[in-house]
Amino acid sequence: MTDNKLRVGILGASGYTGADLVRLAAQHPNMDLQVLTANSHAGKKYAEVYPHLGGMNLPDLIKIDDANWGDLDVIFCGLPHGTTQKIVASLPEHVKVIDLSADFRLRDVDTYKEWYGHEHYAPELQPSAVYGLPEHYREQVKSARLVACPGCYPTAVLLLLIPLLKAKLLDEKSLIIDAKSGLTGAGRGLKLNTLFAEAGEGMSVYSVTGHRHAPEIEQELSVALGRDVMVTFTPHLIPMSRGEFISTYANLANGASVQDLRECLNDAYQDEPFVRLLAEGASIGTQHVRGSNQCLLSVNKDRVEGRVLLFSTLDNLVKGSSGQAIQNMNIMSGLDEALGLNQQPMFP
Amino acid sequence: MTDNKLRVGILGASGYTGADLVRLAAQHPNMDLQVLTANSHAGKKYAEVYPHLGGMNLPDLIKIDDANWGDLDVIFCGLPHGTTQKIVASLPEHVKVIDLSADFRLRDVDTYKEWYGHEHYAPELQPSAVYGLPEHYREQVKSARLVACPGCYPTAVLLLLIPLLKAKLLDEKSLIIDAKSGLTGAGRGLKLNTLFAEAGEGMSVYSVTGHRHAPEIEQELSVALGRDVMVTFTPHLIPMSRGEFISTYANLANGASVQDLRECLNDAYQDEPFVRLLAEGASIGTQHVRGSNQCLLSVNKDRVEGRVLLFSTLDNLVKGSSGQAIQNMNIMSGLDEALGLNQQPMFP
Amino acid sequence: MTDNKLRVGILGASGYTGADLVRLAAQHPNMDLQVLTANSHAGKKYAEVYPHLGGMNLPDLIKIDDANWGDLDVIFCGLPHGTTQKIVASLPEHVKVIDLSADFRLRDVDTYKEWYGHEHYAPELQPSAVYGLPEHYREQVKSARLVACPGCYPTAVLLLLIPLLKAKLLDEKSLIIDAKSGLTGAGRGLKLNTLFAEAGEGMSVYSVTGHRHAPEIEQELSVALGRDVMVTFTPHLIPMSRGEFISTYANLANGASVQDLRECLNDAYQDEPFVRLLAEGASIGTQHVRGSNQCLLSVNKDRVEGRVLLFSTLDNLVKGSSGQAIQNMNIMSGLDEALGLNQQPMFP
Amino acid sequence: MTDNKLRVGILGASGYTGADLVRLAAQHPNMDLQVLTANSHAGKKYAEVYPHLGGMNLPDLIKIDDANWGDLDVIFCGLPHGTTQKIVASLPEHVKVIDLSADFRLRDVDTYKEWYGHEHYAPELQPSAVYGLPEHYREQVKSARLVACPGCYPTAVLLLLIPLLKAKLLDEKSLIIDAKSGLTGAGRGLKLNTLFAEAGEGMSVYSVTGHRHAPEIEQELSVALGRDVMVTFTPHLIPMSRGEFISTYANLANGASVQDLRECLNDAYQDEPFVRLLAEGASIGTQHVRGSNQCLLSVNKDRVEGRVLLFSTLDNLVKGSSGQAIQNMNIMSGLDEALGLNQQPMFP
Repeated sequence: MTDNKLRVGILGASGYTGADLVRLAAQHPNMDLQVLTANSHAGKKYAEVYPHLGGMNLPDLIKIDDANWGDLDVIFCGLPHGTTQKIVASLPEHVKVIDLSADFRLRDVDTYKEWYGHEHYAPELQPSAVYGLPEHYREQVKSARLVACPGCYPTAVLLLLIPLLKAKLLDEKSLIIDAKSGLTGAGRGLKLNTLFAEAGEGMSVYSVTGHRHAPEIEQELSVALGRDVMVTFTPHLIPMSRGEFISTYANLANGASVQDLRECLNDAYQDEPFVRLLAEGASIGTQHVRGSNQCLLSVNKDRVEGRVLLFSTLDNLVKGSSGQAIQNMNIMSGLDEALGLNQQPMFP
Repeated sequence: MTDNKLRVGILGASGYTGADLVRLAAQHPNMDLQVLTANSHAGKKYAEVYPHLGGMNLPDLIKIDDANWGDLDVIFCGLPHGTTQKIVASLPEHVKVIDLSADFRLRDVDTYKEWYGHEHYAPELQPSAVYGLPEHYREQVKSARLVACPGCYPTAVLLLLIPLLKAKLLDEKSLIIDAKSGLTGAGRGLKLNTLFAEAGEGMSVYSVTGHRHAPEIEQELSVALGRDVMVTFTPHLIPMSRGEFISTYANLANGASVQDLRECLNDAYQDEPFVRLLAEGASIGTQHVRGSNQCLLSVNKDRVEGRVLLFSTLDNLVKGSSGQAIQNMNIMSGLDEALGLNQQPMFP
Repeated sequence: MTDNKLRVGILGASGYTGADLVRLAAQHPNMDLQVLTANSHAGKKYAEVYPHLGGMNLPDLIKIDDANWGDLDVIFCGLPHGTTQKIVASLPEHVKVIDLSADFRLRDVDTYKEWYGHEHYAPELQPSAVYGLPEHYREQVKSARLVACPGCYPTAVLLLLIPLLKAKLLDEKSLIIDAKSGLTGAGRGLKLNTLFAEAGEGMSVYSVTGHRHAPEIEQELSVALGRDVMVTFTPHLIPMSRGEFISTYANLANGASVQDLRECLNDAYQDEPFVRLLAEGASIGTQHVRGSNQCLLSVNKDRVEGRVLLFSTLDNLVKGSSGQAIQNMNIMSGLDEALGLNQQPMFP
Repeated sequence: MTDNKLRVGILGASGYTGADLVRLAAQHPNMDLQVLTANSHAGKKYAEVYPHLGGMNLPDLIKIDDANWGDLDVIFCGLPHGTTQKIVASLPEHVKVIDLSADFRLRDVDTYKEWYGHEHYAPELQPSAVYGLPEHYREQVKSARLVACPGCYPTAVLLLLIPLLKAKLLDEKSLIIDAKSGLTGAGRGLKLNTLFAEAGEGMSVYSVTGHRHAPEIEQELSVALGRDVMVTFTPHLIPMSRGEFISTYANLANGASVQDLRECLNDAYQDEPFVRLLAEGASIGTQHVRGSNQCLLSVNKDRVEGRVLLFSTLDNLVKGSSGQAIQNMNIMSGLDEALGLNQQPMFP
């Protein structure tokens, strides 16, 4: 570390998570971006790929093979699923790795194979990967070398449900998660259904029963509850760029009340800088978190006896990805966890 | 009837449902728009209120009190809730009335009072009102004088669920309805949360546990099943102008299969012009119905054993309102039910 | 012609103009869609490519080489620029051709080569091609075998300016055309800048000084005026799917007044079904034409002496493309010019 | 000043500019928000009016009459036009005032009356007001007590044109400014044309020849050139929340070249933190400045001889309003001009 700054590399800097890492790093007093890789764009200035960051002084894009790892303290990996495992295995030991892909999120390599369609390429590393949800794995993150940042949907779901399942306040067999996401969740790749003319002025459901965030959610809820949990998880595509909104339906466990739920979440998060339980009846929407590292939670009693309506929302590129990654970096590096992450949401 | 044309009036023609009635009427060979009322705009040309219809030859807007009912065969009422009851009670008997408000949808005037906050003003007329969901009340609509058009959400929910509950294929206690609507569902009134800068690039939940379409849905599902049904119904506001998307979660009744559900819906709708069951795995979104009188249905098996994912979508201003109203008019007048309603959806 | 219906083929039916031709054809009493081609989608049902038209009974997509031209009366070509010339040259003589590409719009094959980067492949056919702007070439369209439909921007510009230049009311050296288009103008191809996340919540300028519609506009304005005209033409990309809005700035010719302009346009279009001059001070926006074959015009005096502000707007997929193509077909076939094109705009 | 922090009040904190002042203040190390006024919301928590800022610790809203001016160092006024003049006249001398309304922008009180429809209420203060465009009035701002922040459109226009007119590189009689703005430019008031369903999926022109930013632009261009300038200025409403894009058309002055223009702007802004001249051919759009205090400029040669295409873009709520206001505060207070304003643009 020179000048008290972390020397940082971003692998796969041409995706939206890469761009938001760069945006946030500009506000972080201890991050020194030294390496930005993007294989197909290698040789370009970053501003050719992301003109909105043309005012920053950034290194040009290079190929991964041309990066000098010895000079780096921390690497963020924003590579496509399936490519990070081999790369991480080849990095020098002193480099801390924060992976934003799904490559190290699933503890069971067989589950990984089932959902991602290929053998895990670094099964020997998987046990050392820490699931980077700081509010629930803070201690493990502190000493981790390899952190697997949660998916955007899982972050919004788990911040809401982990405390409630740990406290056995919900009937886990009743969990129905209706998820809604903006278009950045689909990445910057060229796909017909993410064109403006296709996705605008309309909404649809996608990946019905097949979204890869389901096993990730189930893994962590099962840990929280202490027994296997399976959930209904249905994602929808909403005509907005950023933002995720989760509507969770559940039945109360025997004897539990809505008030118990509120107290449980209040206890869990009252001292957390980035998770906020809203007052009863307060409005909740993605507009209230856009651009920030905040996650909002809301607990409501349903008209149907014994059922609750639980809402959570976050910006998928920040708390759901790049912001949480920096939060993990702060913890791993002994910095104030909220350093560089205090931007307020931008509304409108 | 002159020239084989129905002489038509639209009360409350300045709302979005009024405008879409006029738009659709322009394509209908048997509708002659003779009266358009809008109290606060009385005296104006219709094109001052809706410039997009400036190419039509339309009567100027007048006050309700200035309308000559004797000249009319059919009246569409697009007035605010609570104002139609008295007006309908004062109309001459020969005028057929198609009400697009909620004033005559709830059969039980006590339920009406509970949800709308005032006594029903025409309880003596309520028993004669037919619930205008043609696919399920066609015979009653044929001979009705007063038809209460279903709400937009109820139309999308009931077309999906009525056949399934009639056939006892679902556990009615498990019904969870996650509803999504565009902004026109909120009407043309000036409200902060419907400004572009507030509603754009974001989404939120609203009317949590308190939306007035819930009792309407429950009324009709209870009739279908033969016993009381209560549902979880949660509406969300989506940044698009038109379109509604309903995600319904349910458990199968004992012994029922997903295949049974598909066959049931196929039997119910295979000869219907405006309801279409999609093939397994086909994509479904509001983009596919925009501007048309179509309602699409989709049935899917969940990963969770015994649970199904049911989707339905329609254009809230057409099949959810003005189009369905004209469909009712066609039936009441002995015309081909699909007359003037065959516009295909507009995409993009 | 069987049953008084035209047997119609659409080449390149997988683009947005193809889809809108199909949508409009569904409302046209004399069009029988017999052939739909799309090379990369050959073998698929049309509803797989455009689910919103899944309710229509349409032929499956085939390759161009598999089409039987002998059975057809009219062909619409919605193929990429540069591919139509050879195909049209190979079609049997009895088939009428309405081309929606740019292949036959430019009369001078050298200008074509300059702007499109390759030699014209059917220079012998070019002289027979009629520029399909019905309001100004109606007589020629009547007897044409090959009609080149104008580009979307040129349609909006020329309907406004041709009468004014013919009447020598404007200083042609002063013409500045600031054009704005929605995303469908860019087609259905996969391009980074047309992704929702890139184009949404923002606007930009594109093709600065290099848009291929400029020489087309200049060709027709030069014909109208009787001498060479060169214009400033700058297109902008607006976050909406459909619609074009043209803001034209010009100086009045010596002695001309704003009133002269209004009278000139009124004379030109008062009997036209699809072009409408708005009253002074009336609002004008793309919302007022969406989905319709209408073009709106507006004439305004500027604060700067001798300068005028001229606005025009249309739906690029209808009057700017598919609707105008059908209008041409009607004329070429001796049908009522407005047949099947009377849908009112859809707002909101 | 306590703790080296400025004690700050925001009058009219319930508008969008108020909210963005609060958002930006959260990142500013020297701003201590002590007073937030909003007459109709007095007594409420700020988070009731702007839930996205619910994570901040802010004073409750009060009435202007209840504010204690003695405790404040700086006041930002975000009040409706016409109300600030009297209030400012009543403030204690030691309070510095940064006005975001139009009340003190026009130096000539007769011009003010002509465009705003009433006599100026504080004509004695007007001569002391400094026009707060820091890049061109930095020295005057340093010692000002009352700064009138430029309008959003004028900021984008003047940053582009002031240096060019000062250097006499353009024919000022040829200036045509085609302006485009998102919906926040219209404020948070309830107006029909700013509803999502009205403004979405479409665009329109507004305030044709009558926008109040025209005289403000003309005032400053006249100062720059040294003689009276009158411009064509036409604003359009674009379906996005934030962002302004200005397309300016002009003829080169005798002997001037595009290269001269580029050098002139480069000289003017190469050391400025918030204004950036883009390289030739670089793309320019509002997406590249969203949420930031940056203004981008682009200079292009037209195909028409002697004509240039000039583009500028900024975020109307930041560099066009609240960000520029804080930039002025920094200058007035002897702080680093860029303090708290270095957030990078947010894209997507």
